[in-house]
Formats: sequence, C-alpha cells, structure tokens
Amino acid sequence: MSSLSDKQIDLQLEELAGWQRDGNSIVKTYHFSDFIEAMSFMNQAAFYAEALEHHPEWRNIYNIVEVRLTNQDTGGVSSLDIRLAKRMEHIVQPKRL
Amino acid sequence: MSSLSDKQIDLQLEELAGWQRDGNSIVKTYHFSDFIEAMSFMNQAAFYAEALEHHPEWRNIYNIVEVRLTNQDTGGVSSLDIRLAKRMEHIVQPKRL
Repeated sequence: MSSLSDKQIDLQLEELAGWQRDGNSIVKTYHFSDFIEAMSFMNQAAFYAEALEHHPEWRNIYNIVEVRLTNQDTGGVSSLDIRLAKRMEHIVQPKRL
Repeated sequence: MSSLSDKQIDLQLEELAGWQRDGNSIVKTYHFSDFIEAMSFMNQAAFYAEALEHHPEWRNIYNIVEVRLTNQDTGGVSSLDIRLAKRMEHIVQPKRL
C-alpha cells in the first residue's frame, strides 16, 4: 500500500462528488435529515471500514457527519481511502449502482 | 430546561470520572480496545441520546471517542448533559449499577 500521486488523487476526486483534498487527507461533510440517518450512515460505513481494516476519522453533530480519510501508514491518500470514500457514496446514493 | 450553575456542574462532575468542564461544555475522551468497541459504545449512547432528544457532539478515530456535551438551547451545561454523561458512564461500566 502506497500513497497516490496528486494527479491520481485529483482523478479519483472527479468521481467523488463533494469530496475535497485537504493536505494528506480527503474530506467530506455529509448532511442527513436527522440523527438517526446520520448514525445509520456511520454504521453502514463502519462495517465496511472494519472489513477493509481501514478506518475513518469522523465527527458527528446531530444530522452532520464530517469525514476525514487518510492513510497513516503511508502519510498520504491511498487507494484504501478512495475505496472507503466510494463506499460511503454508495451508501448515500445506492440508486446509482 | 435551564443551564446549571458552576457549582452544580462541579458537584455533578465529581461523580463523573474523566469528565471535565470546557467552557459551556463537558467533555471526555474514551479509549476502547478497538474500532468495534468504539462503535458499539456510540451506538448504545446514540439510542439513549435519541430517546432523550439530546445529542452529543463526538469524534471517532479507530478506538477513540471524544465526546462533547452542551445544551445549545440554554448555551450552557444542562441537566440533560449530565444525564447523557451518566448514561455513557453506565455503558462503559455496567457492573457499577
């Protein structure tokens, strides 16, 4: 597992609506209808993160979930971060798949 | 629902190990054995928060959960924050009850 190049990250972010680069991380703030929806999202993402053995840094306040993904082993954005971000998008937009 | 006085908050915090005053909030950082334990704690606390209609501001990184409780309606620490903090303590130390 190695960090992606800036070019690779930019390319991936084009497919990840609302995700932005922030230093060595990619970040997105999700807004849900309420706390239950926010927690449901976190739980669905949590199962995938655990299976992937790659975990998010995230903050929740009522209906908001702020997600930060980075790879502490490589010190940058890795393909695991992209996979987890894509899965989070799948959770909030299941109809797209 | 009104904010508690400094004296009332101090008195309550004496019974809440690890909880500290931080401005208009009370805060605690929980350390768990792993991500699953951290998420399990958040889920148990979430059910109670939802029932109480009073929600935490919290941040998770792998096995760590940083919790901040405040009452935005009153602009200070209220009895709801104390109740939620006590419930969180109950979750991590169920044998005490």
